Amino acid sequence: MKKSIVKTGFVGAFALVAATAFAQNSDISKEQAEHAIETRQSIFHLQGWAMGPLGGMLKRQIEFDANLAKQSGERISHLAPMITDAFQTDTRGFDIETEALDTIWENKDDFAKKADRLVQAANELVAAAESGDQGKTLRAAAVVGKACGACHDAYRSD
Amino acid sequence: MKKSIVKTGFVGAFALVAATAFAQNSDISKEQAEHAIETRQSIFHLQGWAMGPLGGMLKRQIEFDANLAKQSGERISHLAPMITDAFQTDTRGFDIETEALDTIWENKDDFAKKADRLVQAANELVAAAESGDQGKTLRAAAVVGKACGACHDAYRSD
Repeated sequence: MKKSIVKTGFVGAFALVAATAFAQNSDISKEQAEHAIETRQSIFHLQGWAMGPLGGMLKRQIEFDANLAKQSGERISHLAPMITDAFQTDTRGFDIETEALDTIWENKDDFAKKADRLVQAANELVAAAESGDQGKTLRAAAVVGKACGACHDAYRSD
Repeated sequence: MKKSIVKTGFVGAFALVAATAFAQNSDISKEQAEHAIETRQSIFHLQGWAMGPLGGMLKRQIEFDANLAKQSGERISHLAPMITDAFQTDTRGFDIETEALDTIWENKDDFAKKADRLVQAANELVAAAESGDQGKTLRAAAVVGKACGACHDAYRSD
């Protein structure tokens, strides 16, 4: 967990100055903001990892596997509720690399609704995969991808 | 998820050469190795995040909260099974910053056993927290910490 170590020298020094200058959230330190950003990036990384097999099945790159689809659905349904928890820490104003838009904290209810929608879609995927029905499972997997995308479209920078 | 972007310039160029020279795992590219390393670091980051409240309760820094302890236990029990999956990708020989020791892939059974022990400890924590018994829950939380530590002692560089 030493990702931040690579960000040293000039860039690090600049970020520190910038954070001092622009930080709006006096309750947390830059270190705490960095940790919070790593937390949410970890959640999204693992969600992407869990989505991997679903994407492969949807693109017919790998064979349909109901058990694997179920595992992906379960992992996403376990990870998605962490999103709103992780975004409790308002990191606006810190000069730290992030794709999260400030509008997240200006539209908390909508953001939480989109995260809940992902949990729901993941649970529906688990149920579909348990039925073993390939068409139903792949349709449910596509809905999970759509739920991810809805939040990315609204709250992630390009 | 652009952590690797900060690792540019000379360091990046050197790593690329080193990987070409030392890579033992011809099945995967350096990019795939980096992704696998980010995956396991994400798991460990979230486990640390989930452990946070337990550590606070054990050190009496925060008030005991059975529901919060239960949530931590559930999250760890959901994350821990991902460990052995993530370590399926053998990243030995790549010059990428990681605390994971090569011995992980030389002792796969023991590594998996230690990961299973963590799942078991987390499940026992959930059961203890559900009982609402503070002493029992904190003892179970300490056992979870010990299960994390057992693997760190054996397979993580200092």
